[in-house]
Amino acid sequence: MQTNALFTNVRPAGAAATNVLVRDGRIASIGTAANAEGADVVDGGGALMLPGLVEAHTHLDKTVYGMGWYRNEVGPRLIDKIDNERAQKKILGIDPARQSARQIVLSVGHGTTHIRTHVDVDTEIGLSGIEGVMATRERYRDIVDVEIVAFPQSGMLVRPGTVELMEEALRMGAEVVGGLDPSGMDRDPKGHLDVIFGLAQRYGRPVDIHLHEAGELGAFATELTIERTKALGMQGKVTLSHAFCLGMPDPVAVGALIDGLRDAGIHIMTTAPASRPAPPVKRLVEAGITVCAGSDGIRDTWGPYGNGDMLERAMLIGLRNNFRRDDELELALDICTYGGAKVMALDGYGLKPGCRADFVLVDAETIAEAVAGRPQRKLVVKNGRVSARNGVATMEAP
Amino acid sequence: MQTNALFTNVRPAGAAATNVLVRDGRIASIGTAANAEGADVVDGGGALMLPGLVEAHTHLDKTVYGMGWYRNEVGPRLIDKIDNERAQKKILGIDPARQSARQIVLSVGHGTTHIRTHVDVDTEIGLSGIEGVMATRERYRDIVDVEIVAFPQSGMLVRPGTVELMEEALRMGAEVVGGLDPSGMDRDPKGHLDVIFGLAQRYGRPVDIHLHEAGELGAFATELTIERTKALGMQGKVTLSHAFCLGMPDPVAVGALIDGLRDAGIHIMTTAPASRPAPPVKRLVEAGITVCAGSDGIRDTWGPYGNGDMLERAMLIGLRNNFRRDDELELALDICTYGGAKVMALDGYGLKPGCRADFVLVDAETIAEAVAGRPQRKLVVKNGRVSARNGVATMEAP
Ligand SMILES: [Zn+2]
Ligand SMILES: [Zn+2]
Repeated sequence: MQTNALFTNVRPAGAAATNVLVRDGRIASIGTAANAEGADVVDGGGALMLPGLVEAHTHLDKTVYGMGWYRNEVGPRLIDKIDNERAQKKILGIDPARQSARQIVLSVGHGTTHIRTHVDVDTEIGLSGIEGVMATRERYRDIVDVEIVAFPQSGMLVRPGTVELMEEALRMGAEVVGGLDPSGMDRDPKGHLDVIFGLAQRYGRPVDIHLHEAGELGAFATELTIERTKALGMQGKVTLSHAFCLGMPDPVAVGALIDGLRDAGIHIMTTAPASRPAPPVKRLVEAGITVCAGSDGIRDTWGPYGNGDMLERAMLIGLRNNFRRDDELELALDICTYGGAKVMALDGYGLKPGCRADFVLVDAETIAEAVAGRPQRKLVVKNGRVSARNGVATMEAP
Repeated sequence: MQTNALFTNVRPAGAAATNVLVRDGRIASIGTAANAEGADVVDGGGALMLPGLVEAHTHLDKTVYGMGWYRNEVGPRLIDKIDNERAQKKILGIDPARQSARQIVLSVGHGTTHIRTHVDVDTEIGLSGIEGVMATRERYRDIVDVEIVAFPQSGMLVRPGTVELMEEALRMGAEVVGGLDPSGMDRDPKGHLDVIFGLAQRYGRPVDIHLHEAGELGAFATELTIERTKALGMQGKVTLSHAFCLGMPDPVAVGALIDGLRDAGIHIMTTAPASRPAPPVKRLVEAGITVCAGSDGIRDTWGPYGNGDMLERAMLIGLRNNFRRDDELELALDICTYGGAKVMALDGYGLKPGCRADFVLVDAETIAEAVAGRPQRKLVVKNGRVSARNGVATMEAP
């Protein structure tokens, strides 16, 4: 296909069937009168057109997808999983470049056009994860945009040398400063967050913190994050991932946190976990907080689940939040598209003229049907070019 | 295919590759020396062989699958959903015979060989649901076994005439006596359960009660059910569906209920709901309680979800219960196979010589991979004959 193409008989976000003209990687115009001169014509067959799906939280470097089934016999504690993973990286030979390529190809087949990935940085593997994922994102740049978070999975302050490695990762090209359970992991919430925000300030980067801490402990870390975000004028540049504490039962305590997060312009990422307290998505959105979603780890040493399908993630958000009405399922999809786009500050995201031509065609009558049914992606377009057909990406993985 | 067939190169429940000889609808022998004389040979290609999947709780009569997308704008209360459904049955023309056929074909394509369905009985539709589903199960009897629960969806004591209709349903061929929220719906827990168990005694039938009542109210209904089950010697013949009350946070209260359920031989059915308190599956099984699972309503006026895939249900059980280890995912599949078989008292269920030849072939290395990945069903066999190939049932729906 050329960069000029006319997609006929498509229904953008469920609207009436129309034509979408793509020129030079962007949506040039929408309408039945759209001018097709010099453009290839692609018959959409009445398909529903969705904006490119946004995977706003995953770990490209650690999937074992395509490596044969990993038999999980890991212990129940968090530290069991972290230690096991560091060991398995060597034992199994989990190559970040190869494995991130495999997950990218899987995700693109499911309609993903943008990925934010956390990549491990620690004193054992150093920056090899960052280097591997950076090489892969360069190779697959035509079919997906990848943003990298330098992520201290094995602890930061408790593992001297990690901060320097994270700093080096930022210089190399990681875009976002990661953090992890300031109390639970680093045993020093003030110290952890001061370092994270210090790096963010020095390099002018956004922040994305894994916050698994539940209840009052997580609430405290959230408060510390709100204080720093406001004090440093970082509104709109900070994301709390998971934030299980927002699922605590006390509505008054949660209400205060929600107010604080909204005032500080902090975003929330959720996987909509079925087995943990989880952020009340609708309440957050109604309060004006941007919510995005991600698969988190896909088939790795932590757990066996995940396939990179962000339509399925929207369904899981719906199931977790007891969404049944069509408007609620549309909200779930919004989180997996526009929510992620806002968190990643994507330029020109959407289905309007002038937007980048990143979209997905599926056979579904409505957005709600697409979320509940997760039909195969007929066509995925990235920057105006086909990146996947019938569920299969146009580029292969090693 | 004839009723004699040799399935070569298959791995029953993940064991080493072997052959399975099927004769007259049953597994005659297993082993590489299995005698193929006069039998068709089917190359399993190294596939994993699972026993037929058991859908132990659904509502065949009320799906709107295949009727065009139903736009859900229903109110939040339980009674909104019940009243809306009764109205929509007429407005949309939800024909129980046609719709149950559509769901059966969908489910068989996903490897289901046995279904327990609750079918609405009320004073508006009378027994038309029962009649429709009975006609359909007769038509599809070669590809699936269906068991019918007479279900008072719109209330029993609060809707005079319903008990008589349920009794008539049992005489017509419904196998199981259904019940629904003795306090929440009928406002009379003693009265409701006495009638249900009275019908069960009079007709010698098992009982399956929808119990959504949470916390202490559900615990009370559970206690009343335990008392009646023991007093009437109905151990092994009573199922509580949903039993959200077993997900209440108080471990002492839940422990007492679990002991009581085990002593009374009462089974638990769960959909593993992500948005509700849910029975702790592993704890129940370890206590010796039989747990089965179901899709509940599939794409109906209550909600948009569901596809009849019991491998996906096993995954949802895993996600809900934070199962990550392989042995835990195997337990999740057990619930969707042997658990359901025990609850439905299926004769000759399993993958051993002498068992009915009801099984599924999938491309997966292990059971855990089949649960997490939900691969397309390559072949489904029911009573020794192919009922689905590559996800598509051999019989069509109207
Ligand atoms: Zn993560
Ligand atoms: Zn039900």
